[in-house]
Amino acid sequence: MLVNQKSIAEKEGIYDLLPFILKPQNIARFENGQVLIGDRRQYPFKKVFVACHSIDEVAKAIKDMVTQGSGPWMAAAHALLLVADGNADEKQRLQKAREVLVATRPTNTAMARRLDYILNEAFKNMDAGESASNTILKLLNNMIVDIYDSYTLRAKYANTLIDKNDGILTHCFAEAGFILAMAMAKRDGKNISVYTPETRPFLQGAKLTAPSLHELDIEVRLITDNMPASMMSQGYIQKFITAADLITLDGYVVNKVGTFQSAIAAHYHQIPYYAFAWGVDENSATHDSIIIEQRNPEEVKTVLGEPTTLADIKACYPAFDITPPQLVSGIISVVGVLKADDLVGRGKL
Amino acid sequence: MLVNQKSIAEKEGIYDLLPFILKPQNIARFENGQVLIGDRRQYPFKKVFVACHSIDEVAKAIKDMVTQGSGPWMAAAHALLLVADGNADEKQRLQKAREVLVATRPTNTAMARRLDYILNEAFKNMDAGESASNTILKLLNNMIVDIYDSYTLRAKYANTLIDKNDGILTHCFAEAGFILAMAMAKRDGKNISVYTPETRPFLQGAKLTAPSLHELDIEVRLITDNMPASMMSQGYIQKFITAADLITLDGYVVNKVGTFQSAIAAHYHQIPYYAFAWGVDENSATHDSIIIEQRNPEEVKTVLGEPTTLADIKACYPAFDITPPQLVSGIISVVGVLKADDLVGRGKL
Repeated sequence: MLVNQKSIAEKEGIYDLLPFILKPQNIARFENGQVLIGDRRQYPFKKVFVACHSIDEVAKAIKDMVTQGSGPWMAAAHALLLVADGNADEKQRLQKAREVLVATRPTNTAMARRLDYILNEAFKNMDAGESASNTILKLLNNMIVDIYDSYTLRAKYANTLIDKNDGILTHCFAEAGFILAMAMAKRDGKNISVYTPETRPFLQGAKLTAPSLHELDIEVRLITDNMPASMMSQGYIQKFITAADLITLDGYVVNKVGTFQSAIAAHYHQIPYYAFAWGVDENSATHDSIIIEQRNPEEVKTVLGEPTTLADIKACYPAFDITPPQLVSGIISVVGVLKADDLVGRGKL
Repeated sequence: MLVNQKSIAEKEGIYDLLPFILKPQNIARFENGQVLIGDRRQYPFKKVFVACHSIDEVAKAIKDMVTQGSGPWMAAAHALLLVADGNADEKQRLQKAREVLVATRPTNTAMARRLDYILNEAFKNMDAGESASNTILKLLNNMIVDIYDSYTLRAKYANTLIDKNDGILTHCFAEAGFILAMAMAKRDGKNISVYTPETRPFLQGAKLTAPSLHELDIEVRLITDNMPASMMSQGYIQKFITAADLITLDGYVVNKVGTFQSAIAAHYHQIPYYAFAWGVDENSATHDSIIIEQRNPEEVKTVLGEPTTLADIKACYPAFDITPPQLVSGIISVVGVLKADDLVGRGKL
């Protein structure tokens, strides 16, 4: 028997503070027998959804990069509801759906782990007489509550770092933790300004971060990726805050390429740098174990689908970079703001 | 009486080393009664010229940004040949042409100074019986020889800084001085690799630097503006070398925005940073006097003419940044590589 969790985010009124793109129902939802996936390829110019009527359509949407971040696993989990119909061979069809969905992201083990957890529970409860769709819906709801509660806790700690009139530099799209922290700072009358580098090659800063903040009526200015140090030297920046794709137990922050050079520039200007923990990786004891994903260099040679240079010129695309703990003033976690060299044994952050 | 100068660049075979876009005749030339201006808007995808038959057409081409860098004054000077026809009212028509051409670049006093110098000499020589077109052609030739000799001297000093197997980071388009230095290093068997950030918003790195080096068969890799520090930390970069729009007498380097943050990152990684002097500004005694040009923020919000974000989001566009002498290992000048804090009284560099 599953019990709906109590939501910290709901108690704090957080769901109302979120911009369109970060509201969970706009990432993916099940409605009238379809999975609706928010189309981030068209955002911010259009706020539209891709409607999927089958597992194959959801798989195609994920492969076509309709969504990103936490979007793919949420779309995939909702897709299970398309076949959880109580009809014959339900278990086999759910298992088949899982295979098709997981194949869309062969390197993303998080999606596989989440779908396996959901299906294991659903199959167990089916044997006890509960419908698969009921279990899937409840688990999905609990997982979403968990995630947004975690965003809420981190955002509250991040907000304690923000002073009145702060100029805040970020990088890429630091997800709901960062956006909520900015929303809380504004709510508290702190009169902040956010500077967001466009984040080439995919322009998440221009297409996701700036529009999200603008929607919340937070003062935001777009800059190119070569301007952070210039903005610091002109006195516009008092804090540098980003997400983190991974934080090792020895305090190294792995995040979208560009984070490291802004952290160096922040250190040079004596500006503190804080990273949002999204679970310290207990499997990454030290930074030596990190393997940086080298993405297709062709992506560096185009912008919005147009080539920027000649076809036979080479390019490099290290997707992430690594910022050492000496450049990190604090890790924003669900238990508070921790020193980067004080993470061992903290468990899930 | 004007004497053609002896060309150091010619003696060194430099004109053969230059890529298409930097050969003087491909920037602007007078041919069959027309001014041909190399169209940098279409480069590197097309190597084409805009043919102008009148002063107004040249003025329009300059306003339409057909060329940049040293292109506008060279196109304007060649345009004078369109009216230097020995017919009635030649002086008045030349003076009128000067007004129309100078009006294309109200803030660029260099073009006005050069045209005034050429016309003064031409008028003086006309009174002594020499044709205006003859004087203009000779002066233009001498000025171009001067400029390319200066590039050659600087490139030779820069080449002394390059070691075998060096990885060299640059920024924006560091003009013929840099490209020639790389060509000389390659000619000398140094096996270099150049890493060129694309340089948003106008992508000069992607559209000018990378194709120029590639044409010379120099190993070059395009990166985005958020990658320099990542490349350094991976051990790919041994030198950081850029042009300079201005160097103050107290050793501050003013260059395309992004130079400063790469200089900070280079210093952090103990990688030397060198800047090409293009004449130290005797009027800029200290960096306090520098006024950074704030360009139209709309340019930051588009790429290749396409919007990257919503129309009502604000942006910033400081065109240049300022690197202090503590981060500058040397200034590459026509008299050698100087320490940044040893520029006073050096005269023209």
